[in-house]
Amino acid sequence: MTDTFVVVGGDAAGMSAASKAKRENPDGDVIVFEKGEWVSYAACGMPYYVKGVVDELDDLVAVTPEEFREERDVDLRTGAEVVDIDLERETVTVETDGGTDEQPYDDLLVATGATAIEPPFEGLGLEGVFTIHDMDEADAIESYVTEHDPETAAIVGGGYVGIEMAEALSARGIDVHLYEMLPHVLQPFGEAVAEVVEEHLREQGVDLHLETAVSGFVGDERIDAVELEDETVSADVAIVGVGVTPNVGLADAAGIELGQTGAIATDEYGRTNDENVYAAGDCAEATHVVTGEPAHVPLALTANRAGRAIGQTITGDPTPVGEIAGTAIVKAFDLGAARTGIVDEQRAREAGFDPVSVTISAPTRAHYYPDGAELTVTLVADRESGTLLGGSVVGREGAKRIDTIAMALTAGMTVMDLQNADLAYAPPFSPVWDPVLTAAKVLGGTLK
Amino acid sequence: MTDTFVVVGGDAAGMSAASKAKRENPDGDVIVFEKGEWVSYAACGMPYYVKGVVDELDDLVAVTPEEFREERDVDLRTGAEVVDIDLERETVTVETDGGTDEQPYDDLLVATGATAIEPPFEGLGLEGVFTIHDMDEADAIESYVTEHDPETAAIVGGGYVGIEMAEALSARGIDVHLYEMLPHVLQPFGEAVAEVVEEHLREQGVDLHLETAVSGFVGDERIDAVELEDETVSADVAIVGVGVTPNVGLADAAGIELGQTGAIATDEYGRTNDENVYAAGDCAEATHVVTGEPAHVPLALTANRAGRAIGQTITGDPTPVGEIAGTAIVKAFDLGAARTGIVDEQRAREAGFDPVSVTISAPTRAHYYPDGAELTVTLVADRESGTLLGGSVVGREGAKRIDTIAMALTAGMTVMDLQNADLAYAPPFSPVWDPVLTAAKVLGGTLK
Repeated sequence: MTDTFVVVGGDAAGMSAASKAKRENPDGDVIVFEKGEWVSYAACGMPYYVKGVVDELDDLVAVTPEEFREERDVDLRTGAEVVDIDLERETVTVETDGGTDEQPYDDLLVATGATAIEPPFEGLGLEGVFTIHDMDEADAIESYVTEHDPETAAIVGGGYVGIEMAEALSARGIDVHLYEMLPHVLQPFGEAVAEVVEEHLREQGVDLHLETAVSGFVGDERIDAVELEDETVSADVAIVGVGVTPNVGLADAAGIELGQTGAIATDEYGRTNDENVYAAGDCAEATHVVTGEPAHVPLALTANRAGRAIGQTITGDPTPVGEIAGTAIVKAFDLGAARTGIVDEQRAREAGFDPVSVTISAPTRAHYYPDGAELTVTLVADRESGTLLGGSVVGREGAKRIDTIAMALTAGMTVMDLQNADLAYAPPFSPVWDPVLTAAKVLGGTLK
Repeated sequence: MTDTFVVVGGDAAGMSAASKAKRENPDGDVIVFEKGEWVSYAACGMPYYVKGVVDELDDLVAVTPEEFREERDVDLRTGAEVVDIDLERETVTVETDGGTDEQPYDDLLVATGATAIEPPFEGLGLEGVFTIHDMDEADAIESYVTEHDPETAAIVGGGYVGIEMAEALSARGIDVHLYEMLPHVLQPFGEAVAEVVEEHLREQGVDLHLETAVSGFVGDERIDAVELEDETVSADVAIVGVGVTPNVGLADAAGIELGQTGAIATDEYGRTNDENVYAAGDCAEATHVVTGEPAHVPLALTANRAGRAIGQTITGDPTPVGEIAGTAIVKAFDLGAARTGIVDEQRAREAGFDPVSVTISAPTRAHYYPDGAELTVTLVADRESGTLLGGSVVGREGAKRIDTIAMALTAGMTVMDLQNADLAYAPPFSPVWDPVLTAAKVLGGTLK
């Protein structure tokens, strides 16, 4: 008898696990149930489809359903929704157009993803009001913009989806208003990044409304305006990007434990409280590399990596899913902004650290070499131990330098360790002291 | 009585140490003897001055002699050559135009740098034949090119100086022939990088002569041609860039111990065998982060970092100079090429490892995002332990990703540790799996 590995959800985590399990054990059965039609797509690419720099929505698909079925021999069933998990009997109940079926499993992966949060706004159902979390929504936004040629857009939420959509809609010739309830955009990136990004958004013509709560949308069938506390602002299209919430209903109903973050609790192998059931991707927690505590940071690499590791684990090669640092990067028009670890000092204190931080600006190339940019680098460390807790960077080039800081966190390095790292220098690529090293030098000086 | 810190040599290591020592202890005397007139200059920027993208040679000076003297209160004496060190009496003998003097020291830093190797070629003294290691040479080359408008150039040596000068002289409209004795250019970068760079050099019109020994230059006062074993090739200007040799004569004569590499042996604080004498920069050894053994890798960051640390140490705050990974990056026309750690498998075996390596090519951005480039990544690890030993990258963008690998070496990470690093992803900056992570995945697969 062959083992049956059942996967619920056909995006990054699910398809990575399915592909890896089948490759490691071609004799095992691997069945993926996906309630929609799209699988293995790059949600992060959707703003660029709306912007018009990616021609076809299909371009965002990494591997097509046909390729999964034919080349990877994965039994992928789209339009098939798992509505129940029975941990006792080790079966899932699946609904399709054809009816309801039961499917037994030996190992199960819950990779149900996350859903865009819909705030309790009036007028969310108006035509022209969108969230953007799946391919159909991206398709609908693009079609709407093409068809209705909106003059003004309201973007609700200054997280990365909001900022990417501001860029996308500006590029389509639309006047963009961006509404953020908090004092700054990109909250997890910290103030140093936010201030640089906000200035740039304004330079790019985005009408930025900070500390501004949206209460709803008004219009007659189609959106006409966005309602604020004491003002109504014209808007021909609206995008609501205020975050995502993990899809845990199925798991929760089955008795799979959730963690404190509200996402599915997992161990270092991605295993839930049931030893044959795993969870990965946007619906699951992961362990934070700095705090060692569970965290919920729904990002693509985490999903892919955990899926792949679980595919190895269930085929007999126990493989940790890896810890996360919450590393993220976003393009904001001509800027790159990135963050990793714990940037917020308040959060650092809550995690038991005594944070100290510096922010410096330094050129990305030798001072005499043409076309460099200024990179603003923030580093946060624990005062007593000198251990690095997090950091951020923002600038017109060099934002991938966040990886240097992410590596330092992964390795548990101190500020002094980072300061002495032998990074690459040549005038077209860096000053002698890379901006990250300069930040470490300055922070090191304050720790003495 | 105040302490006197004497520094021999006024470039990166020497001036970093002097500045730091004075800042930490403003009451101490800091005297720098520099035999030339240039201090604290970016030798790495010289090719770009010749190329014409840096306007003035002075632009390459980070801090001027006046700034050192007036703003940093360093007693900088240019045109002052230290000709003898007396370890017993703790004095140095200094020659200037005005005569010979003795200067006592409490702490001494030998930062005498390195000199371009002059191979035993015929015709090295001909007009139009240059090495390029100091500012006067850069000035002379630029003037010669401007004045004589050469049609063809012979560059001897395919290291980074040779390649940067090939780019510089091509940009000046000169037909460049590049001669390399070995089978590949950029030997320390490994074959995977060399092959990509060589193809690109040829595309850019460089006439590449591999495994070709130059025996000398011929001409009547001024160079006319370069002589090979069985051929003479016309050349109106020649640059010899076959490496550097540490300037250790002064130290050696004084009884300061040299290491196996021929450079000055130092401990983790940059101290020589004499407890009050330090050495740093291109004349000194440093400890390799992978092997733990002394190495001589004369690069700018190493010099700056060691100088700064020694400035701290001698003012009462013992600070390790840091280990080196031999991280280096070079621009070759439109390519960036970089390396870190031990790339050469033969060298890895000599250091007691059982090396295994992979080379992969992956896009620098999401596959659907415009204007990405292909990055070729090589990783080398020890088969038994999985510990990373080194790596290289080459491509039209993203060469600074070498820093990710350098960080992994610094932290002593295994391939699996690197594979699970949480690096930054967004479509304009990276595929979901950064090319470095992809290389780690593939290498990890071969280790099982």
